[in-house]
Amino acid sequence: MPQLRREPLFPKRWVVFAPERKQRPIDYPPPPEPLSSICPFMAGNEDLTPHEVFAIRPEGGPPDSPGWRVRVVPNRFPALRIEGELLPEGVGLYDQINGIGAHEVIIETPDPDQELEDQPLGAVTDVLRAYRARIIDLVQDVRFRYIFVFKNVGMLAGASLRHPHSQLIALPVVPRAIEEQLETARSHFELKERSLFSDVLQAELKSGDRLVYENSAFASFCPWASRFPFETWILPKFPAAYFHTLDDYHLGLLAEALRHVLRRIRKGLRNPAYNMILQTAPFHLPRVRESIPPEMEFRWHIEILPRLAQAAGFEYGTGFYINTTFPEEAAAFLRRVRAEM
Amino acid sequence: MPQLRREPLFPKRWVVFAPERKQRPIDYPPPPEPLSSICPFMAGNEDLTPHEVFAIRPEGGPPDSPGWRVRVVPNRFPALRIEGELLPEGVGLYDQINGIGAHEVIIETPDPDQELEDQPLGAVTDVLRAYRARIIDLVQDVRFRYIFVFKNVGMLAGASLRHPHSQLIALPVVPRAIEEQLETARSHFELKERSLFSDVLQAELKSGDRLVYENSAFASFCPWASRFPFETWILPKFPAAYFHTLDDYHLGLLAEALRHVLRRIRKGLRNPAYNMILQTAPFHLPRVRESIPPEMEFRWHIEILPRLAQAAGFEYGTGFYINTTFPEEAAAFLRRVRAEM
Repeated sequence: MPQLRREPLFPKRWVVFAPERKQRPIDYPPPPEPLSSICPFMAGNEDLTPHEVFAIRPEGGPPDSPGWRVRVVPNRFPALRIEGELLPEGVGLYDQINGIGAHEVIIETPDPDQELEDQPLGAVTDVLRAYRARIIDLVQDVRFRYIFVFKNVGMLAGASLRHPHSQLIALPVVPRAIEEQLETARSHFELKERSLFSDVLQAELKSGDRLVYENSAFASFCPWASRFPFETWILPKFPAAYFHTLDDYHLGLLAEALRHVLRRIRKGLRNPAYNMILQTAPFHLPRVRESIPPEMEFRWHIEILPRLAQAAGFEYGTGFYINTTFPEEAAAFLRRVRAEM
Repeated sequence: MPQLRREPLFPKRWVVFAPERKQRPIDYPPPPEPLSSICPFMAGNEDLTPHEVFAIRPEGGPPDSPGWRVRVVPNRFPALRIEGELLPEGVGLYDQINGIGAHEVIIETPDPDQELEDQPLGAVTDVLRAYRARIIDLVQDVRFRYIFVFKNVGMLAGASLRHPHSQLIALPVVPRAIEEQLETARSHFELKERSLFSDVLQAELKSGDRLVYENSAFASFCPWASRFPFETWILPKFPAAYFHTLDDYHLGLLAEALRHVLRRIRKGLRNPAYNMILQTAPFHLPRVRESIPPEMEFRWHIEILPRLAQAAGFEYGTGFYINTTFPEEAAAFLRRVRAEM
């Protein structure tokens, strides 16, 4: 049974113990996917996955049948389980919570060889629509404090399956990375009565040195203190705390921005492994300061983290990063890439 | 020129920009070390490194000559530079510091094929003695707020050279990971008038479930909320904030504990990549609470982090971890490994 444990020396750091995601204690590294094996995410193999929880089927058809463009299924090896009551517990000095949550897979396409950025804009929009639909559904479950959507591409970025897919994990606690951004933005607002996210975006648009792409609703840049070479963020240019409140029109513009940036990264960096993460505001939280509107505390955004070098002792021991590439250099390089748009 | 930058959304997170550590923007992944190339760390190749800053030469001899057992040299591709004044600077919204610090390599042995845990106890003690000597020297430089010692083994753990070596980085800022432990332990002390590190150690010794090894001065266990499968810590059983105040007798006992644990990990997990990190208290900091003795705020310790799986989107997006192996299972497994001691 999965379990969450809190580290006593780092009280904001929870670790999800997911024993069912491996077979034996020494089953490391995870055996690479045999290329000849049957892909459970391909069209026609719907019976190899758990029952779908969402799908986009332009022609209609019953659940778990072919004809879908995007399909969402529970993870076969979930890090967290959907059934049960939350039971936070103290064990002497230590804290634990039973492993309640959700772990879903967003299968982005029936075609195993078509990367997200290869797809037509409508199909990329459908993937984002699936993210939104699943968040809107799961947000109703009051056991969950946060819903995290991410995508791992390439073995060096932790992907175990090649077929283009994203993942969603619903958590009973708010991620420390989100809490920290909220706290920082709250202090900023109290001091300046401005949104920190807006200030960062304005600084980037004004300077242009780290800018990668811009359309009418979204801007993309390599952040000032990028952790990774070619780290690239996509932010809405309008105030918005929650990704799932995005309307269809803006979803299309986001798809355009995302596809554009992913194409430049893939072509410029020769198909790198990367993680893509969605950062959105948490739900069901007592509002810490009733007077601060959510969109002043947070702005949802997407971060693309190319994994060109390994995190090592320095990163894990300090919480800092060593990065060999200034974001100004990374952005200039990405701007020069001629990608077919 | 290297530079430190602070992330506005995570004000405790600094990123070290070290452009000299790569050749070209798209020089990723770093070219693997050609096996036929000349190893700059081997005995006889002393002229291939910068001038040594420390060495242990049982038979004597001039600097930068053979005959050493442990040798410390500045890193040829330093993340930070030793020369100059610290210049913290604001750039609009953003903060930066010029990249002042130290980056040294501790060459653990003249023999490229002898891993740290293969060596006789005296030689392991010498490596720890070199750590201590370098910290004692660098601590006098008031520009540095922290001295971080670590070791990367294996490509998956970020190592670029095979020859057994550790690294030392002196930083002008305190790592956020250290600050967080200090803050947590301070709150604990104010509430309970006890050291949090001591409470954790007592809990581990009492339960024994996560214990891996123990001698008269040190204990080793897999921590309650291990981030990584088989993560293993080594803590002194006596109060001590600073590693560099350790005497020779205890250095020998630490070498024994470290060698024992590394041998079990290597044999049990079949030569895994790992990071080893030294966590010690910071220097030159104004004492936040004069009434709290340093050894109540911090206990130096070593963490060994096997890198059996890749950190992925979940880890970077949340600051949490997914771990497939409970520490109780990991410790029981490591206790069963029959290593030649």
